[in-house]
Amino acid sequence: MNYRLIIFLFGEICLIVGAIMCIPLFMSIGYGEMSTAIGFGIAIAVCVALGGIGLVLRPAKDKRDLRPSSGFAICGMLWIVIALIGALPFCISGHIPNYIDALFETVSGFTTTGASILKNVEALPKALLFWRAMTQWLGGMGVLVLAIAILPRSDKMSTALAKAEIPGPQFGKLVSKLRFTSRILYAIYIVMTLLLIGILCACKMPVFDSFCHAFSTASTGGFSVKNASIAAYNSVSIEVVLTIFMILFSVNFNIYFMIIIGHFLKALKSEELICMLIIVFVAITGITIDLCARNTYSSFGEALRYSSFNVASVMSTTGFGTADFTQWSVLSQVMLLGAMCIGGSAGSTAGGMKVSRLIIVSKSSLINLKKTMSPRSVYSLKMDGKTVNESTVSNVQNFFILYILIIMVSTLLISIQNSGFDSGNNFTTNFTAVISCFNNIGPGLGAVGPAGSYADFGVFSKIILSVDMLLGRLEILPILLIFSPKSWKRI
Amino acid sequence: MNYRLIIFLFGEICLIVGAIMCIPLFMSIGYGEMSTAIGFGIAIAVCVALGGIGLVLRPAKDKRDLRPSSGFAICGMLWIVIALIGALPFCISGHIPNYIDALFETVSGFTTTGASILKNVEALPKALLFWRAMTQWLGGMGVLVLAIAILPRSDKMSTALAKAEIPGPQFGKLVSKLRFTSRILYAIYIVMTLLLIGILCACKMPVFDSFCHAFSTASTGGFSVKNASIAAYNSVSIEVVLTIFMILFSVNFNIYFMIIIGHFLKALKSEELICMLIIVFVAITGITIDLCARNTYSSFGEALRYSSFNVASVMSTTGFGTADFTQWSVLSQVMLLGAMCIGGSAGSTAGGMKVSRLIIVSKSSLINLKKTMSPRSVYSLKMDGKTVNESTVSNVQNFFILYILIIMVSTLLISIQNSGFDSGNNFTTNFTAVISCFNNIGPGLGAVGPAGSYADFGVFSKIILSVDMLLGRLEILPILLIFSPKSWKRI
Repeated sequence: MNYRLIIFLFGEICLIVGAIMCIPLFMSIGYGEMSTAIGFGIAIAVCVALGGIGLVLRPAKDKRDLRPSSGFAICGMLWIVIALIGALPFCISGHIPNYIDALFETVSGFTTTGASILKNVEALPKALLFWRAMTQWLGGMGVLVLAIAILPRSDKMSTALAKAEIPGPQFGKLVSKLRFTSRILYAIYIVMTLLLIGILCACKMPVFDSFCHAFSTASTGGFSVKNASIAAYNSVSIEVVLTIFMILFSVNFNIYFMIIIGHFLKALKSEELICMLIIVFVAITGITIDLCARNTYSSFGEALRYSSFNVASVMSTTGFGTADFTQWSVLSQVMLLGAMCIGGSAGSTAGGMKVSRLIIVSKSSLINLKKTMSPRSVYSLKMDGKTVNESTVSNVQNFFILYILIIMVSTLLISIQNSGFDSGNNFTTNFTAVISCFNNIGPGLGAVGPAGSYADFGVFSKIILSVDMLLGRLEILPILLIFSPKSWKRI
Repeated sequence: MNYRLIIFLFGEICLIVGAIMCIPLFMSIGYGEMSTAIGFGIAIAVCVALGGIGLVLRPAKDKRDLRPSSGFAICGMLWIVIALIGALPFCISGHIPNYIDALFETVSGFTTTGASILKNVEALPKALLFWRAMTQWLGGMGVLVLAIAILPRSDKMSTALAKAEIPGPQFGKLVSKLRFTSRILYAIYIVMTLLLIGILCACKMPVFDSFCHAFSTASTGGFSVKNASIAAYNSVSIEVVLTIFMILFSVNFNIYFMIIIGHFLKALKSEELICMLIIVFVAITGITIDLCARNTYSSFGEALRYSSFNVASVMSTTGFGTADFTQWSVLSQVMLLGAMCIGGSAGSTAGGMKVSRLIIVSKSSLINLKKTMSPRSVYSLKMDGKTVNESTVSNVQNFFILYILIIMVSTLLISIQNSGFDSGNNFTTNFTAVISCFNNIGPGLGAVGPAGSYADFGVFSKIILSVDMLLGRLEILPILLIFSPKSWKRI
C-alpha cells in the first residue's frame, strides 16, 4: 500500500469538504451566529491543514495506482475522516456539546440516515441546519463520486473508489469514462434537486426550508428543520410532491440516463423498477386497507394520504414523518418494517438491502429449489434478460448473510447499554433502531418512532449505531475491509 | 410418481402410528377415562383403515423406486397426515374441542416444538398427557426413521425418505446399510431416554411425570405435565439433570456412535460440538453476569441456576421453563433469542438453524471477504479437516436465506389477525412466536413467554404457526416441495 497516495487522496477530499463548508460559514456570519462561525472556521482550518499535508506529500503521477481491494478500505476510512471533521461545527459551536452526539448526527447525515439525537431541532442556528441538510446531499450521491467528477484522475483508481461508494450488487458505467459517468450522475442529481426546490417553494414552503428539505429528499436522508418534520406544514400538496420525489430518488439513476439518451421503453422495462413500484403499490394498498379496517383515521382519503407518504418515506429510506406510525396496528408496522429492509433501487440515493438484491436472492433460492427437483438440469439466473454471473449471485447471497448477522450482533451490542425492564418495548426499540440505522432510514418503532429520538441511547450504543449507519451506506465491505491487514499491504 | 407406492408408504406409517396409539388407549381404559379411550379408538380405526388400503394397493416389489426429490415431498405429506390423525384423540375426547387447536398441539408435539394452546395442562387426563409427550418422542428421532428401522425396504428408497427427515446440512450414514443406521440411532435414543427416566425417578419426580418429561427432554420438545413446567418441582437436582440431558440430546448422535465404537478422541474433536459448547458457555456466562449486575436474583448461585437451565432449554430448543425470562433484561432476552435461532447440532433431536449451518455460513462469508482482497486466490471451506463441497455450501446459504424470508413473511401473516394497538409488545410477541415455532422451541418473548400460551392467536395465525413448525422440523424443503408439481410427476 502506497501511504503517500492515501494521504494525498485524504487531503484532496478534505479540501473539497472544506470548500463546501464555506457556504454555511458565510451563512453563519451573515446571520450573525458567531459561535457557529467559529465552529465552521476551525473545521475548515483542519481541512486546509490536512489538504496541505496531502498536497505536499503527493506521489508522482506514475505511482498513483490502487488495488481494487484497497480502494474499498480507503473509501471506508475516508468516510470516517469526513464524519469526524463534519461533526466539529456542531460540537465547537456548543449546540451539540457532546462530541459523540455530534458525530452520531453527522454520520447520520452523511449516510443519509436521518436519525437524530436532537429533541428540539428548531433551536439550532440556520447555518447548522443548512450544514446538517448538506451533509446528506453530499453523502447521497457520494463524496468520492463528487471528487472523481471534478478532479483529474486515472480511470482505474477512480473505479476502485467509486465501486465502494455507489450502492448496488453490480457496478456499471454509463459512459466509457468514469469521470464523465460521475458528472452525468451529479448533473441529474443537481437538476432534480433544483426542480424540487422550485416546486416546494411554489407549494408555499419557506425558501430556507425548501432548500433543506430538498437536500433531505434528494439524498433520501430525512433530516427536517421542524420538530414535527413534514407534519408541521400540514399541507397535502407538499406531501404529494415529496411522496413523488422520494420515490423518484429511489430509482436507479441509470434509468434517467437511459431516458435522457432516448431509450425510453428499455428504461421502463427494468425489472428492478417494476418490482419496486409493485412493492410500493402493495404496501400502500395493504396499509391503507388496514388503517381503514381498524378506523385509525376518520376517512379513506386520510388513510391513503398517511399510508402513501409513510410507505414512500421508509421504502426510500428517507424517514420523513407525517404520522406516528408506532400508533398504527402491528400489521401496518410489520409491513413498514419490511419496506424499510428492502429499501430502494441499486444506483439510487436510497439505502436498504436494495430491490435488485432481493430479486437476485429470491431468484437464486427458486433456482436452488428447482435444482433439488432435477439435479442434472442447468439453470441460469437472469435479470433484465441478461444472465447474472455466478460471482455476483454468490456476492449477493453473502451480502444478505452478513446483513442479517450484523443486525443480530448489533441488536445484542446495543442491548448491553439500552436494556431496561420494559421488555417488550425495549426489544422492539433496540431491534428496529438497528434496522433503521443500518438501512439508513431514520425512525424505527417503539421509542425511536417518528415522534421519538436517539438521544436516550448510551455512548457505546451510539457508536455501534454510527458504525451500522456507515456499514449500511457503504454496503458493509468497505468498513469491514478497514480491519483487514491485507488492505493496507504494499503492492 | 407412483401413486400406489405413496399410498402404500402412507399405509405403513399409519399402521405404526396406530400400533403406538394402543399404549395411551390401554392407559385411558385403565384409568377409566372413557371419552379419551373413544378418541384413541377412533384414531386407531382410521389408522387401520388407511393401513389396510395401503396394503391392498401395495405395488410389486420391483416397482418400489423413488426419486430423491419425490422423497422430500412424500416425507412432508406424511408428517401432515400423521399430525391430522394424531390430533383426533384430543378433539374427539372433548378436551381440546376445536380441531385447529388440537392440530396445533399435535403438530407442536410431533415437531418437538412444545408450544401449547392449553392454559391448564393439569386438567388433561393422563392418557392424553402421555400421548402428548409421546408425539414429541416419535417426532424427535423421526417417524420415518422408525419405519426404516423396523420395516424391510430398499436402501435407495429409505435414503430418499431419511434424508428429508434427519436434520442437518449433510447426510451421512453411520454404517453402510441405512436400516442398521436407523436402528443404531433409535437404540442410542432409547437407552438415553431410559437412563433419564431412571435418574429423574431417583430425583424423586413421580414415575408418570418422569416418563413424560424424559420424552420431552429426549426429543427436545418441552411439553410438561405441570402448568408451571419444571418450576413446579422447585428441585435443583432435577434442574441440573435436565440441563445436562438437554445439552446431551442436542449433540449430533453420530458422536455417540463414534464413542461407542471407540473413536473417543475423534468424537471430541468435532468442530460442531466444540462450537456448540462454546456458545452454551458464553450464553450462560453472559446472562449470569447480566442477571447479577441488574440484581434480578438475590444471589450468584440463583442467577447461575436459572441462566444455565434456560440457556440449555432454548439452545436445545426444548423450551422447559423454570423462570419467566420475559422479566429479564433485554440484553439477556436478546442472547436467549440468538441461542434460540442457532439451535442444536445437526443429526440431533434439537431444532433451530443448527450450529453446523452457522459455522458453514460464517466460514463462507469469511472466504468471500478474503476473495475480495485477493480475487485470484483459491480458498476451500473445511470442516473437521474435510473440504465441504460447493453444493453443500450453496445449499446452506440458500437455507439461511429461505430461513430469514420465512420468518419475515410469517411475522407479516400472523400480524394480520394478531394485531392490536399495544404495538411494542405485539411486535415482540408476533416476531418471537414465529421464531419460536419455526425453530421448534416453544416459548418466545412478550405474550408467548414461558408464562404465556398460544391460546389467544386466531385460527389463521395458528395454521401459519403450525406450518412454520413443520417447516422448521423438516428443514423447509420437504414442505415447500409438496407444492411443486414436479414432485408428483411420474418417473
